[in-house]
Amino acid sequence: MKHLLSVAEMQRGDVEELLELSAKFAEVLDRPIPKVPTLRGRTVVNAFFEDSTRTRLSFETAAKRLSADVMSFSTKGSSVDKGESLRDTVETLEAMGVDAFVVRHSSSGAPWQVASWVDASVVNAGDGTHQHPTQALLDCYTMRPHLESLEGRRVAIVGDIVNSRVARSDIDAFTLLGASVVLVAPPTLLPRHVATWQVEVSHDLDPILPDLDAIYMLRVQMERGTGPRLPSLREYAARYGLDGRRARLLPEKALIMHPGPMVRGVEITPEVAALPNAVITEQVANGVAVRMAVLFTLLRGGAP
Amino acid sequence: MKHLLSVAEMQRGDVEELLELSAKFAEVLDRPIPKVPTLRGRTVVNAFFEDSTRTRLSFETAAKRLSADVMSFSTKGSSVDKGESLRDTVETLEAMGVDAFVVRHSSSGAPWQVASWVDASVVNAGDGTHQHPTQALLDCYTMRPHLESLEGRRVAIVGDIVNSRVARSDIDAFTLLGASVVLVAPPTLLPRHVATWQVEVSHDLDPILPDLDAIYMLRVQMERGTGPRLPSLREYAARYGLDGRRARLLPEKALIMHPGPMVRGVEITPEVAALPNAVITEQVANGVAVRMAVLFTLLRGGAP
Amino acid sequence: MKHLLSVAEMQRGDVEELLELSAKFAEVLDRPIPKVPTLRGRTVVNAFFEDSTRTRLSFETAAKRLSADVMSFSTKGSSVDKGESLRDTVETLEAMGVDAFVVRHSSSGAPWQVASWVDASVVNAGDGTHQHPTQALLDCYTMRPHLESLEGRRVAIVGDIVNSRVARSDIDAFTLLGASVVLVAPPTLLPRHVATWQVEVSHDLDPILPDLDAIYMLRVQMERGTGPRLPSLREYAARYGLDGRRARLLPEKALIMHPGPMVRGVEITPEVAALPNAVITEQVANGVAVRMAVLFTLLRGGAP
Repeated sequence: MKHLLSVAEMQRGDVEELLELSAKFAEVLDRPIPKVPTLRGRTVVNAFFEDSTRTRLSFETAAKRLSADVMSFSTKGSSVDKGESLRDTVETLEAMGVDAFVVRHSSSGAPWQVASWVDASVVNAGDGTHQHPTQALLDCYTMRPHLESLEGRRVAIVGDIVNSRVARSDIDAFTLLGASVVLVAPPTLLPRHVATWQVEVSHDLDPILPDLDAIYMLRVQMERGTGPRLPSLREYAARYGLDGRRARLLPEKALIMHPGPMVRGVEITPEVAALPNAVITEQVANGVAVRMAVLFTLLRGGAP
Repeated sequence: MKHLLSVAEMQRGDVEELLELSAKFAEVLDRPIPKVPTLRGRTVVNAFFEDSTRTRLSFETAAKRLSADVMSFSTKGSSVDKGESLRDTVETLEAMGVDAFVVRHSSSGAPWQVASWVDASVVNAGDGTHQHPTQALLDCYTMRPHLESLEGRRVAIVGDIVNSRVARSDIDAFTLLGASVVLVAPPTLLPRHVATWQVEVSHDLDPILPDLDAIYMLRVQMERGTGPRLPSLREYAARYGLDGRRARLLPEKALIMHPGPMVRGVEITPEVAALPNAVITEQVANGVAVRMAVLFTLLRGGAP
Repeated sequence: MKHLLSVAEMQRGDVEELLELSAKFAEVLDRPIPKVPTLRGRTVVNAFFEDSTRTRLSFETAAKRLSADVMSFSTKGSSVDKGESLRDTVETLEAMGVDAFVVRHSSSGAPWQVASWVDASVVNAGDGTHQHPTQALLDCYTMRPHLESLEGRRVAIVGDIVNSRVARSDIDAFTLLGASVVLVAPPTLLPRHVATWQVEVSHDLDPILPDLDAIYMLRVQMERGTGPRLPSLREYAARYGLDGRRARLLPEKALIMHPGPMVRGVEITPEVAALPNAVITEQVANGVAVRMAVLFTLLRGGAP
């Protein structure tokens, strides 16, 4: 593996290996000094052409715990303002000795372009409405100890599918590992070509709930123009939000997941987010171990 | 001690211990390689919801010299723009393995809220017009070698009291260590409830000067709306600014202090800031040692 | 050497020594772990009062590979917004224990002011339209292995001379090392006092090309107001851009250089930038080694 661009480009074995490696790094994180010298002297650049404090800090933490040198920039304050092209930016940074680029970009496909220009490794940290593969990996990693395996499991992904790169990556990952996926959303929040995806589709949440092993609630992404697609947030919450009543329709052990940040009271109520089977904080915590596994695999290979 | 939120919550013994520990870290800073491995593997996040280059860099320096991993963000460029709540932000970061949050926030009380949500340690690096405890500690640490002790000393705090978190923390710290405090300001720059504070109040600077052991000039904080509270900056400078004539009314060894950044020519003239008994640069330098002592105490305890 | 402010203040011997030292650090960069502990415990601050991702990251990389602690800020998000003066900012940071300031500023001369205020070392990372000495050093370092020596070589610098701090530093460096320089630009892009410089001047590019050992294309700096100085970008590109036809007029081994970021299709065409004798990527790569040599020389002296 040289790049991590999308789950769709991975074999099931690649994913399994990354998840096992993540477990090893999770053990490192439990040590009194949660660091290993594995990537000493390697340089990782977080190239964030779209802001995200949480994802940037997760990758920074992962890189620091592997003892890599890590530098970050976001386009605010970057020479992109001088009209510099994406290509020039990354080629210049690579010439300085960068070993891996963690790229977030508002344009779908940008990380593939970067990978075509540089010899360094590229991790897609979210591109437009397209893919967010490390999120999908950390979601699978979070589900496994609770569900034993994803094989034969049934997972609902609920909400703002059309704008969600998380949904696209999760669908690929969950199905690759043998789960079946049902998307639940109003028609306006589903992409037009959803019929071609290997998923079930439903516009009605309640009847789906009793058969689920996990329910994945998506953030309503107002900043991506979701507003006009909805009659009102209140009506959306009433029909598609996960509240206490709906949570009680789930099997007792069904996992409740969310990629964060939550819009509490819209897609999920605060009480539901605090239930014992809500693993939302676990997802975040696992992100560091999974990203360590990804950076390690791309930059070093072999055993940790 | 788990958090450092305000001086008011500290015992005199806590403050004394932190000041003694600061002296030990000041010795570390005098070494050819001014670093200790004490906090290796600990992660400190500077969560600045209000900008401050100088305070951020002081904490970053302190953390690096303790060999902690340190990451910083300010709200510009943070996911707070997506409507993410303060609670979600800090809970998410804690889940990544953060051991201490250094929080600056424009809302008074925000660091207490953070401390109530996370298991990590929290340092208040300035909240609204409320508290700035590490500033008070470094001020006390700076005064002690010059004044031997604060016991029985008399300190004036002059200027924009109403908007000053530095004044509130300093009043608590100076009185806790046995000094008496006199506030000098026009009525419009004093808080309404000042009569309930354990301080003297004066609207006239000159008669106060001959009896002081230290005078602490505050920055006029135009960005917090001080402008409309004053007839004019010129008149303010004439009545409350520390110029050469007034400095000569001070006892010879009285300390001249300022938290920085100075507005030269308003609350203090450049010539006064350069006097031998002005310890303004010492205050800044001591900030690193004091913040090392604070981070060490919260994250490790025991002897350095 | 305490500061690196401009090439004009350097002796030929200083430059030669830095270039030799750069070669040693380039060897370090070729190691599996491209780091040395030389500046452990030293603190370098990138004080960028004007944004530049690429220059900041080049200096950050250099400092990290010397094991220095490095912190960066740009004025966006700095206390400069509170009306803090440049002097207060740098004096405050120095008091925290900063050993070297890397200063970029939109005002010509600012790094000299900083050097007059602090005891720390100062590196000019670009001031207004004035100087950019590490760029000139890395340009010389890039040229030497290809041209053996700059002695007696002929170099053209083409384009937006009037706004270019790169041109000013390169002219000084190339002539100091024995090369002759010809400036090629329309009259509107030449400074008024160019007649007093030790250079030839031409308004016509084609006749110059066959005699060159290197051609240095400058970026058209629209953000500095170059637009109104030109009839049109298209006409500028036609008369002064380096396209395939013009590149073929150069001697076969003549170097093609550019400080980046390129405005492809204006001062240089993509095909020319990709020619084997275009060393633009080498320039960037060499920047890290040269900046390591500079930081090492200022902060440590002696052999690496």
